[in-house]
Amino acid sequence: IILRAHTSIWLSISEHEISSNKKKKLQSDTVIQLAQTHKPKPDPNGLVFGTVFTDHMLTIGWILEEGWQKPHIQPFGNLSIHPGCSALHYSVQLFEGMKAYRGPDSKVCLFRPKINMKRMLKSAHRACLPSFDGAELLECIRKLVEVDQDWVPHSDSASLYIRPTFLGTEPTLGVKKPSKALLFVILSPVGSFFSTGAKPVSLLADSKYIRAWRGGTGDCKMGGNYGASIYAQNEAVDYGCQQVLWLYGDDQQITEVGTMNLFLYWINEKEEEELATPPLDGIILPGVTRQSILELARKWGEFKVSERYLTMADLRQALEENRVREMFGSGTACVISPVGRILYQGENLHIPCEGSFPPLASRLLKELTDIQVRHYTHFQHTA
Amino acid sequence: IILRAHTSIWLSISEHEISSNKKKKLQSDTVIQLAQTHKPKPDPNGLVFGTVFTDHMLTIGWILEEGWQKPHIQPFGNLSIHPGCSALHYSVQLFEGMKAYRGPDSKVCLFRPKINMKRMLKSAHRACLPSFDGAELLECIRKLVEVDQDWVPHSDSASLYIRPTFLGTEPTLGVKKPSKALLFVILSPVGSFFSTGAKPVSLLADSKYIRAWRGGTGDCKMGGNYGASIYAQNEAVDYGCQQVLWLYGDDQQITEVGTMNLFLYWINEKEEEELATPPLDGIILPGVTRQSILELARKWGEFKVSERYLTMADLRQALEENRVREMFGSGTACVISPVGRILYQGENLHIPCEGSFPPLASRLLKELTDIQVRHYTHFQHTA
Repeated sequence: IILRAHTSIWLSISEHEISSNKKKKLQSDTVIQLAQTHKPKPDPNGLVFGTVFTDHMLTIGWILEEGWQKPHIQPFGNLSIHPGCSALHYSVQLFEGMKAYRGPDSKVCLFRPKINMKRMLKSAHRACLPSFDGAELLECIRKLVEVDQDWVPHSDSASLYIRPTFLGTEPTLGVKKPSKALLFVILSPVGSFFSTGAKPVSLLADSKYIRAWRGGTGDCKMGGNYGASIYAQNEAVDYGCQQVLWLYGDDQQITEVGTMNLFLYWINEKEEEELATPPLDGIILPGVTRQSILELARKWGEFKVSERYLTMADLRQALEENRVREMFGSGTACVISPVGRILYQGENLHIPCEGSFPPLASRLLKELTDIQVRHYTHFQHTA
Repeated sequence: IILRAHTSIWLSISEHEISSNKKKKLQSDTVIQLAQTHKPKPDPNGLVFGTVFTDHMLTIGWILEEGWQKPHIQPFGNLSIHPGCSALHYSVQLFEGMKAYRGPDSKVCLFRPKINMKRMLKSAHRACLPSFDGAELLECIRKLVEVDQDWVPHSDSASLYIRPTFLGTEPTLGVKKPSKALLFVILSPVGSFFSTGAKPVSLLADSKYIRAWRGGTGDCKMGGNYGASIYAQNEAVDYGCQQVLWLYGDDQQITEVGTMNLFLYWINEKEEEELATPPLDGIILPGVTRQSILELARKWGEFKVSERYLTMADLRQALEENRVREMFGSGTACVISPVGRILYQGENLHIPCEGSFPPLASRLLKELTDIQVRHYTHFQHTA
């Protein structure tokens, strides 16, 4: 079976060490076809997120009767897809997002990729796509990054974004569990995520559009959660805001922001200093950066760290009473993104945002970036 | 502008007359490339839904700077899709479903395709895909059906299923309104939809999975609504049922069944004879068959016809009091599908189902089929 565990390789990945001078045992049956020509590498400054792709990609097919096919590392190029494919009609599709960073010693490191593999398997289960061994997929991804390692920017602020995607390729129109699937991985060098740079983002909070709901797929990284959000995102822009603050339920719970998890750093209703984010109750994406922030802040032990419900009423009252210190989004693409303003029921709520990057957000960004570009030592190896 | 209205052609379509001896003015700039070889036509009996496709397909590209490109009718074949395409990552995709029937005079008719075009435009708006002229797209579809007219089965129970699909083909990973799109149409000869033939279907009613929610996309035919349903569908099969009865809200409203709209024919709580279906409140797909059933039953004027909320408690009480006459699903693929049993909270609720196709379901199926295979005379021309 392809994509089974290779323990010796797995351990080296969990240390996030990828370098050309340490030759890992390859996925023995991976077929590698190198590109004949190489695209010019872009300037890492001024890169727009996800617009430039590297020279190669990884594709792995799956067929019900035969299981996983040989992984192929091949020149980046268009996919040939049957027009009846269930990924195109019924959104049988999911993705992941992770980054490779170049450390000061020029070594390339991945940040907590095991968590991405675990989440990808969870999404695959929900999408009725086949299971796979996360360690073995990670080894294929490692090999792909190795082949395209020159594309990992030599830069503090830039990195190589890794996008695994998993599609149902059932070539029939019945709405059913696919008997064919395609897993592929593409790589994109990326700079700073937001076009505003380090400036705080403004949000439109409106309960008209709901990102995810209980009994749905909000806790999985499935395509349908994202396409449906674009309409609300455009409305936010029409109102002079940059992102959507997603609300949920009659009590207008604050759930996520744009495509990020949300954190509120405040003095809570019990007068405790608290860093709070909504709990993983089924409508919240279990973000890798979210989990890392919670673990870091709990390790510090300097204030209460909570996974708890937060409502717009809670936020408004805290703002009136000057109890809000910071609010920020977290995600792989942006890492940390402070919130400066929320437009809610026609009123602008101003979130404290000392300088452009307030103290806790800055500290978290620095600690996370330090871990990302260095060896993986700050987190438990269970992740 | 391609896909603008051609009134003269439109009128002929609204009469649902498509035949080779009436040469319509073509979409003047449609490029037609005929297939060199023709696949064998399948036996219309025993056709599995959506597994066989005809010899040709229609593709129409769109680019933000240039607008709609020339429509192409070309041999059926794989699409070449950029691996960063937003339809594959963020489910920027939607579809439609309609059928071409061969009437007793061998003429080929479409059933109410203007309603499909209107709904497709609504879905496109919600998906942030570009608008188009429905009449002009319909003319392109008419031409495609004409090219492949030998594929319309000479059969009472079989038809040619028409699947327009619309994809965002933005080749970048930002979650945003696409600057490129592809509209394509494929054709599939289909027999009777359900493998059980005319037998009543059994349903699993469980509020664990929710099909659609207010503020979401349940009233649009977007891919994300369907892929997310497969998990629950599999669970229904595990429980010995064929489809899911989708519930919503704390009061467990009955909303849809599988991929169909739902009708309850009963003596309601006010002792009125009533045909009821949930209202179009944002979570219900506005089905063409649903609308046609409502219009037909209202034209008959024999009983109350309502768009109203129905809960599991309403249904249970009515079953206890022997007030339920029939329950059935409606959709383009199956037309009418009677419900025989609902598994709810571990209990089998038996729905009256005289013979295999109860009287009202039979009458509606017959009237709708008569209209579908004959000229369009029963409905107002506004549709």
